[in-house]
Amino acid sequence: MADFGRVVIYGVGLIGGSFALALKKAGAVEEVVGFGRSVGAVNKARDLGIIDRVGISHGAEVADADLVLLATPVAQMGALMEKIAPYVNAQTVVTDGGSTKVDVVAAARHHFGARVGQFVPAHPIAGAENSGPEAAMADLYQGRKVVLTPLAENSVDAIETVRKAWRLCGADIFRLDPEAHDRIFAAVSHLPHLLSFALVHDLAVRDDSDLYFTFAASGFRDFTRIAASQPEMWRDICLANRRALLEEIGCFQSELDALKSALETEDGTYLEEVFGVARTARRNWAENQSK
Amino acid sequence: MADFGRVVIYGVGLIGGSFALALKKAGAVEEVVGFGRSVGAVNKARDLGIIDRVGISHGAEVADADLVLLATPVAQMGALMEKIAPYVNAQTVVTDGGSTKVDVVAAARHHFGARVGQFVPAHPIAGAENSGPEAAMADLYQGRKVVLTPLAENSVDAIETVRKAWRLCGADIFRLDPEAHDRIFAAVSHLPHLLSFALVHDLAVRDDSDLYFTFAASGFRDFTRIAASQPEMWRDICLANRRALLEEIGCFQSELDALKSALETEDGTYLEEVFGVARTARRNWAENQSK
Repeated sequence: MADFGRVVIYGVGLIGGSFALALKKAGAVEEVVGFGRSVGAVNKARDLGIIDRVGISHGAEVADADLVLLATPVAQMGALMEKIAPYVNAQTVVTDGGSTKVDVVAAARHHFGARVGQFVPAHPIAGAENSGPEAAMADLYQGRKVVLTPLAENSVDAIETVRKAWRLCGADIFRLDPEAHDRIFAAVSHLPHLLSFALVHDLAVRDDSDLYFTFAASGFRDFTRIAASQPEMWRDICLANRRALLEEIGCFQSELDALKSALETEDGTYLEEVFGVARTARRNWAENQSK
Repeated sequence: MADFGRVVIYGVGLIGGSFALALKKAGAVEEVVGFGRSVGAVNKARDLGIIDRVGISHGAEVADADLVLLATPVAQMGALMEKIAPYVNAQTVVTDGGSTKVDVVAAARHHFGARVGQFVPAHPIAGAENSGPEAAMADLYQGRKVVLTPLAENSVDAIETVRKAWRLCGADIFRLDPEAHDRIFAAVSHLPHLLSFALVHDLAVRDDSDLYFTFAASGFRDFTRIAASQPEMWRDICLANRRALLEEIGCFQSELDALKSALETEDGTYLEEVFGVARTARRNWAENQSK
């Protein structure tokens, strides 16, 4: 018997579609039902074998589900929770794949009310350069990290259900509280995206921007790769996590001010110290990653 | 007959060594003589066939050279010019491979004096993740850009000599004035390095830095790749180009302030506009690069 009976996926793109494919590959699910933002997307997901069938109604599908994954953009989660909340039965566990957690948890408390214990928040750390059902891959989560940010209201069983599902996808499971999660991802993901967008925008709006881009080389290429990310998605992530992101921007501004002062006073010792600490940390990180 | 008789290389690492190897491969040089910062490095370069022999004395080598390449770190160029200036004969053309140009030109004017017309400044745009003679490659400059920043004093022949040498290395030749060069590279290279170093340093000095690095993923990896660059080299580049770099830091700070305000006022329209302009520009740039 499969680990899961019916799994309902909201959002059949990279995150949701890959989750479905991985569970299917593991033989862990009897039926995957999908909802998407367009008829085209869900039909495509069905044709690609990502989902077994397109969802009929929220009530019919969610009420009999073992597991529901909310894999829509974070800005749409509240409205989606509101729609499905009336149909969440006692046996149903709901989780999400959002990049921010404090806002998702707040929405869940608001919409699920007494049933919030059945919602276990999660964040699979997987790049999203491509999107849509075509981008979904059964092995996307192999060796990737998934962060759970369980609530005090979650039962051990509900947490275990979500943990097991992600383990079946091949992921390594971590736990953080929602605030720590958002603080950490503001620093290591959201701020770098913002800075990369900022640098490219700054050049793009200049009258002689072509001249700058002509001489941009490999350093620029790496630094700005994430500036090609989806504007709407990153607008939503930045807004959803604006408190933690504003904190991180403040820290970064202090860091930049100090480097600026060192340049103004020609303090090479300070520059070399900062660059040296950064280099060592970056090299150690890369070594640990490759282990 | 080869295009060049004797070519003297100061600095037999990635930049100088690759130049020597490329000219040799093109059959364009009779003899390559090398000087380096250590006996070990020049001997290694000779053993690897990068240079034909180790230089004996500045006077003896430079006086009979057709072409001299200064491929040392920018901070050492002034002292080097001072040493060789007395031996630069009427037939000798000197060029350099420095990442900054205004400071190199100033040093050249100071040290070469009446002979400054024989110095043609250049900047080969080639990544420098590795260094030393072992990193040198005959095809490093194939299809890469080399920017010449000729002086008013340069003769057409002197410029043509340097242009020809880099063309023989397989490079595409561009021309800028030194100020434009430094302004452009402050924006597309020096500032990204500084920002990348700053971000990693900011995280590395936190008490709980391990926690941040644990969850850093692919966006972080790309953004911070250049934070693993050589601290001494980047200290020198930042100091050498501090005027243009400070200008660029100022522009970037304004950009960041505007994004911060948009977050504070939850102005999603502004965020999406900035991110969208950046994404389009980054994608267009990448497409042009791959042509």
